[in-house]
Amino acid sequence: MVTSDPALRSRRPAYLSELFDILAARGRRLWRRGEVDAATIPDLCELGDALLSRRGEASGVAIAQELLAAFEVADDDTRLAFLQNLANRFGPDPGAVKAALERLLQYPEDMQAMEALHSASEPLRQELLRRLNLAPGGTAGLVRMRERLRRHLTDIPALRSVDQDFAHLFSSWFNRGFLVLRRIDWTTPANILEKIIRYEAVHAIQNWDDLKNRLQPTDRRCYSFFHPQLGDEPLIFVEVALTKEIPGDVATLLDVGRRPISAEDANTAVFYSISNTQRGLAGVSFGNFLIKQVVEELKAELPNVKTFVTLSPVPTFGAWLERHRKDEASELIDTAQRAIFCELDNPGWHKNPAVVDALRGPLLAAAATYFLHARDRKGRIVDPVARFHLGNGARLDRLNLLGDVSANGLKQSHGLMVNYLYDLSQIETNHEGFAERGLVAAADSVKRALPAGKRS
Amino acid sequence: MVTSDPALRSRRPAYLSELFDILAARGRRLWRRGEVDAATIPDLCELGDALLSRRGEASGVAIAQELLAAFEVADDDTRLAFLQNLANRFGPDPGAVKAALERLLQYPEDMQAMEALHSASEPLRQELLRRLNLAPGGTAGLVRMRERLRRHLTDIPALRSVDQDFAHLFSSWFNRGFLVLRRIDWTTPANILEKIIRYEAVHAIQNWDDLKNRLQPTDRRCYSFFHPQLGDEPLIFVEVALTKEIPGDVATLLDVGRRPISAEDANTAVFYSISNTQRGLAGVSFGNFLIKQVVEELKAELPNVKTFVTLSPVPTFGAWLERHRKDEASELIDTAQRAIFCELDNPGWHKNPAVVDALRGPLLAAAATYFLHARDRKGRIVDPVARFHLGNGARLDRLNLLGDVSANGLKQSHGLMVNYLYDLSQIETNHEGFAERGLVAAADSVKRALPAGKRS
Amino acid sequence: MVTSDPALRSRRPAYLSELFDILAARGRRLWRRGEVDAATIPDLCELGDALLSRRGEASGVAIAQELLAAFEVADDDTRLAFLQNLANRFGPDPGAVKAALERLLQYPEDMQAMEALHSASEPLRQELLRRLNLAPGGTAGLVRMRERLRRHLTDIPALRSVDQDFAHLFSSWFNRGFLVLRRIDWTTPANILEKIIRYEAVHAIQNWDDLKNRLQPTDRRCYSFFHPQLGDEPLIFVEVALTKEIPGDVATLLDVGRRPISAEDANTAVFYSISNTQRGLAGVSFGNFLIKQVVEELKAELPNVKTFVTLSPVPTFGAWLERHRKDEASELIDTAQRAIFCELDNPGWHKNPAVVDALRGPLLAAAATYFLHARDRKGRIVDPVARFHLGNGARLDRLNLLGDVSANGLKQSHGLMVNYLYDLSQIETNHEGFAERGLVAAADSVKRALPAGKRS
Amino acid sequence: MVTSDPALRSRRPAYLSELFDILAARGRRLWRRGEVDAATIPDLCELGDALLSRRGEASGVAIAQELLAAFEVADDDTRLAFLQNLANRFGPDPGAVKAALERLLQYPEDMQAMEALHSASEPLRQELLRRLNLAPGGTAGLVRMRERLRRHLTDIPALRSVDQDFAHLFSSWFNRGFLVLRRIDWTTPANILEKIIRYEAVHAIQNWDDLKNRLQPTDRRCYSFFHPQLGDEPLIFVEVALTKEIPGDVATLLDVGRRPISAEDANTAVFYSISNTQRGLAGVSFGNFLIKQVVEELKAELPNVKTFVTLSPVPTFGAWLERHRKDEASELIDTAQRAIFCELDNPGWHKNPAVVDALRGPLLAAAATYFLHARDRKGRIVDPVARFHLGNGARLDRLNLLGDVSANGLKQSHGLMVNYLYDLSQIETNHEGFAERGLVAAADSVKRALPAGKRS
Repeated sequence: MVTSDPALRSRRPAYLSELFDILAARGRRLWRRGEVDAATIPDLCELGDALLSRRGEASGVAIAQELLAAFEVADDDTRLAFLQNLANRFGPDPGAVKAALERLLQYPEDMQAMEALHSASEPLRQELLRRLNLAPGGTAGLVRMRERLRRHLTDIPALRSVDQDFAHLFSSWFNRGFLVLRRIDWTTPANILEKIIRYEAVHAIQNWDDLKNRLQPTDRRCYSFFHPQLGDEPLIFVEVALTKEIPGDVATLLDVGRRPISAEDANTAVFYSISNTQRGLAGVSFGNFLIKQVVEELKAELPNVKTFVTLSPVPTFGAWLERHRKDEASELIDTAQRAIFCELDNPGWHKNPAVVDALRGPLLAAAATYFLHARDRKGRIVDPVARFHLGNGARLDRLNLLGDVSANGLKQSHGLMVNYLYDLSQIETNHEGFAERGLVAAADSVKRALPAGKRS
Repeated sequence: MVTSDPALRSRRPAYLSELFDILAARGRRLWRRGEVDAATIPDLCELGDALLSRRGEASGVAIAQELLAAFEVADDDTRLAFLQNLANRFGPDPGAVKAALERLLQYPEDMQAMEALHSASEPLRQELLRRLNLAPGGTAGLVRMRERLRRHLTDIPALRSVDQDFAHLFSSWFNRGFLVLRRIDWTTPANILEKIIRYEAVHAIQNWDDLKNRLQPTDRRCYSFFHPQLGDEPLIFVEVALTKEIPGDVATLLDVGRRPISAEDANTAVFYSISNTQRGLAGVSFGNFLIKQVVEELKAELPNVKTFVTLSPVPTFGAWLERHRKDEASELIDTAQRAIFCELDNPGWHKNPAVVDALRGPLLAAAATYFLHARDRKGRIVDPVARFHLGNGARLDRLNLLGDVSANGLKQSHGLMVNYLYDLSQIETNHEGFAERGLVAAADSVKRALPAGKRS
Repeated sequence: MVTSDPALRSRRPAYLSELFDILAARGRRLWRRGEVDAATIPDLCELGDALLSRRGEASGVAIAQELLAAFEVADDDTRLAFLQNLANRFGPDPGAVKAALERLLQYPEDMQAMEALHSASEPLRQELLRRLNLAPGGTAGLVRMRERLRRHLTDIPALRSVDQDFAHLFSSWFNRGFLVLRRIDWTTPANILEKIIRYEAVHAIQNWDDLKNRLQPTDRRCYSFFHPQLGDEPLIFVEVALTKEIPGDVATLLDVGRRPISAEDANTAVFYSISNTQRGLAGVSFGNFLIKQVVEELKAELPNVKTFVTLSPVPTFGAWLERHRKDEASELIDTAQRAIFCELDNPGWHKNPAVVDALRGPLLAAAATYFLHARDRKGRIVDPVARFHLGNGARLDRLNLLGDVSANGLKQSHGLMVNYLYDLSQIETNHEGFAERGLVAAADSVKRALPAGKRS
Repeated sequence: MVTSDPALRSRRPAYLSELFDILAARGRRLWRRGEVDAATIPDLCELGDALLSRRGEASGVAIAQELLAAFEVADDDTRLAFLQNLANRFGPDPGAVKAALERLLQYPEDMQAMEALHSASEPLRQELLRRLNLAPGGTAGLVRMRERLRRHLTDIPALRSVDQDFAHLFSSWFNRGFLVLRRIDWTTPANILEKIIRYEAVHAIQNWDDLKNRLQPTDRRCYSFFHPQLGDEPLIFVEVALTKEIPGDVATLLDVGRRPISAEDANTAVFYSISNTQRGLAGVSFGNFLIKQVVEELKAELPNVKTFVTLSPVPTFGAWLERHRKDEASELIDTAQRAIFCELDNPGWHKNPAVVDALRGPLLAAAATYFLHARDRKGRIVDPVARFHLGNGARLDRLNLLGDVSANGLKQSHGLMVNYLYDLSQIETNHEGFAERGLVAAADSVKRALPAGKRS
């Protein structure tokens, strides 16, 4: 604990001492009424100092409440100033670091000296965030605070350390063990469903009827993770279709006119949409656990379902192909391909069967190349969705030409969609290969789609 | 994250690579069946290495499960060896620290260099514990692990750093926001009540009838904190009596023959027993929050109850008095007192009214001195129960001679019991004064009990 | 129990004996799949006979299930035929009645003979309905069956006895003690909210946004009764507005643009819509209990709310006035009134302040007459909504001119709305006066609105 | 509804009119405080009259509450007087019956006349009980009232009609659809477990440890029916052991030292104790449904369990055998048996293997005769436990010599215990045969135990 450090305590202005009870009482009141008069907002940094200087938890909770309430209602400049102070003023205490450093240099073998250095070099903001988290509603407030912070990450690189500290603490607080899986269906409370409508990021939900059509039919499922501290706020959710075969296009799947099948008759579960909801929780990964737990749930409920597969977009294929078409030096696509890809520039190409036939081979070859050989500057596979599923241990199972011929689908991937297969018996091996050696698990059909010379 | 460090990864023996899936499967199986064949327990440290070396969460969970299961069934020596390895092998990575140190010395103003040093100097065990925590039942397993660890703290000082790290992580995971207050009454599940019987540390519960007598009557309450990760395990609980006056002795309170009063008729709530249950959570303080939340609950339910008070033991008063009686140089008790205190050495003194009368003044004076003036070597008030309640912002309200004339009560405090008063409007000020300046909030009656010359 | 009667048992066709197990198995299957092949529907009356003839409960449940399933999928004619058979074939057993009658005539003082007659004269359908009720989902099925029955009550008077028996049994099964009050708000499951939208009978709910506007704001409440046997089906619900005064018109109340007040600031609770949902439960009154329990709930939650009042339509005022305007012999309105009421025939009269002023006195006088003096052929007060609230012990508190100027409001009551006041301290007296002596409890202001000569 | 009958209303004394509000208020108060001053108990019959005379439900609830509260605290004579009044004063209304009778005799074909007669001949107490049932806690109060009533059934035959009416109403209110099956285990609230200890009627539970031993082990189950109106009061419960074979003696089953098996390893579920708890619900049968629902639960949870069997006492075998030993004319046991049965009169015979061997054949033959041929005066099978299980469709599966050698077991059945087998595929046929034709379903081994000449 940093708080008993006298140097630090002395930072606290004298008048604060009397102010505390007033603040505490006000904080409690404000929070309850949801009203804060902006003119009387106390200084956020002074509150931060006060919070760090207190030994006791009780007064701390009141100050934490006050600080979070004040941050919520402050204007943008005030908020940004506070976030920047998190980076500077609430960084490691230089004096303490210096002292610890000198001791360690003197006794380089002393484990305690090293631990003291570790402790001294911890940014004060970590303790500050931990204490803010003690306020009622504190976790939710901090998630919102980080959401604001992340808007400035590109502009103000100094905030990245702060962001890291948020991420570090959030991965403790949003530990898998705290996550609660709940099925979302038509008996789910409306305030939660309203958020599902709002947060769906892959295939937008038009209205309550559209939502009902994704939740109510016997061959549809939806699951979400919740966290006790965030109440009714879904963290991540997945929409599932139960089918009799692996689907290749999304329109058939979402067709409201289709006749639902009985869940018992299905042999395949299709994860056709996964949405993260909280920008403030970026980098805290839930998707892996969600998919695996949903697989377990479905296996227990529906023993006939043996195949677990996604129907996924390929968000950067279009841009990648564009780049390599322009870059004549690129070896990833050859001259013959380059020529025929001109057809893609004609709107409506996908409605002309002859053109589609001509493009099929080259486009699938390019897609296979994109997944199996292309790498970004960090050496990673290019496609972010692929990174997620392959990282989870899934296998790239099928390339689907004309899987999504909506305007957006044509634009981002020339209509291409893919299936990733979750085979629990292979997940560890796939994951291991991908994480340790960058190996992309892919079905033979995908490998065979590679241009002749590039098949391994 | 430390885990992508190649140096560390290389520690992992090659054969582990193949072993993983087997372990994972076995871990899952073992956990389910609750049976582990001790002969086939894998090496705990190798599992620790493996766990740290894995990038993926899925395989990590399986290894974490295996490690915790293996620790549970290992023999004492094996366990101790692992705990010592936590101190050594899983300390900070010396190479990484050295590199970070050099960089910081070169660029002393570089904040990132300091952050890198902070990161490098973190003991590897912290990440190890975080990953163990991801296993189903992981938190409970770690609490039990620390319980074992603490048995060796006196013998093996090197384990103290490990203990600190446990405490640091537990205060995040047992954050107040995760604690759930539940009333314990006669409708509480038997498996929980059984634990209340077992854990009650202040006034032992004899049997189920005794328990029922503390839960069922209209003028009795009991509340406990629970944590989602520990399921039905109470963390700390408080027993409350509703009365019409502040009680001075515990026998009257626990009398099974007394006639209960209606809760609506009570004006006082007496916290007569607070028990922590988990040794593995030592140092993570819940009591403060528990008492304050129970006060809120009771105020909401029973508006007539205005006084919130404890009836508390004074566990070290007897020993302290003994010490000062023997130490003739002590100024805390004077010669006249010293003479009369000889009566305390006659068993049964408390049954002799004349002796009691003679002792009353001197004993209460000594008690007032004990609370108001005596300090231990660290400069703290001597009594641990007083430290807890005064630290919470309570006030020492009354000294009760012959409050507990059981053998134990006479032995530890010559029968003295005290009341601490929780006055919500004074809590902040009291707490502040105590935490910052060591001021003991006490009623005038207590101050007046001081020997004449020592009243301030 | 009628079932051991050998005469009755002998009615059962022999072949049924073998059929039972098949039926039972099929019934279970059918119910689960929700599919019944209409071609293979068994004869409903034979099933009824079979059900009455069985001693055992187990086989009975299967047959009951079969009968209810068959009724659901039968065509209209088949259903009607069965309902008519309930009136005839499943009436009292004439032979048994004759025997009991003879015995009673012989021993007129014998209490057992009278009881035997009571038992013999019970229509067999009562036992049949009781046994149908034992099937899973049986209660819900019977509610739907009665809903169908009631469509034919006017055409086929013989069905009235059957309807009475349903009502008699339902008042046992829907006993107040089984009803569960639940608050309906924005956290209520969507499948229930969907029904609230569908069932709202007073002020139609346009869509989910409109619904949210009635549930979510701090000054709105909604409560519904549920029954364990009907699951998520609301039986009756009431919508409540919290206000600072008794409202006189519904537009202000339902205005989506209004600024909600804090619930703590309200002093008045307005029941502005009460909807029964189940036609099959006609005559089983829930409204009385609902309103009183909601009053208790609100008093406990919001002690500042002291006034409980409705804002109610006056559904038959327009028709009544029309009748008396045409009937020149009517003494309930006088000549002067009759003349000015011609203004009501001009559409848009309510927008002309001068006309409204001229109409105010006469219209309120007519309204006061309508409530206080007019009676229907059965001697009852004319207005059905008034009968409900006055029967509950409420008082007619205020007449509101232009309370509802929607097309429907103008048509049914020339825009008139009224408030009924629920004053718990007066409810018994009011109820008693109304139920026993037909006295209408009304505020002085209402009585003063009567034409001069008619004030009592 | 009888209540609008003016004759009846006129019965109400005038002064009651004013008394109502006072009573209502007092009833509410009394109920809440649980205190009634016996000196001021109002007259129960007057309250009954008042309750029947009221049209309104609200005042009715208050009076019902008052009546039930007064009955609870009245002395025994007062209570009995009220119960007798239920039989007389609250029987059918003679005048109304007479009128209905005359009308029916005049129009013997008129269905409405018959219905009117049915209605008029209903004892007024039925309506009275229905109205009492509307009070909060009314159902529970009526169950207790009937419990008292049944103590007098033998002495006062006139109460039997009243008892019948209770039973008739209770079978509606305790309809199978309202019953909730809950598993009882070591996580069940203590107040319920306390009742399980108290109500266990077959094999007494000694203390909380004994209870835990029946609930906690992996191979033990306990299930109970509850009813929403009776709250935490178990209605009937069954204790189940999971085993690898059909057990023949109860000592092995209840042995606290045995090593529990894993539930997955069991193939047999043994219902070794079924206890009804509410004497006031005598004649309302739950056991049949309980066993069948528990069978369904266990089949779903433990697919390996294929055999469902009881281990049951034979409560009247000892008395029956005694009778036939004494009755030399009895043909049910022959001379040879009669001789050897003398051994049974020596205490400790069961410890002498030679004697046991000699008795085995004759005793089992007598037992087989007892079950298969002996009948009581009503023509029913003699054993009450057999009637219950055979009536449920179970089969008498095995006779177990020395199944219960406790003092009680030896006394009531010379140590004999039996197993009844619940084979769901045979239940309907068995039940049908037993209920309709008195056929006892028995295993071949039981039939073979019959004396040679009596095997069919």
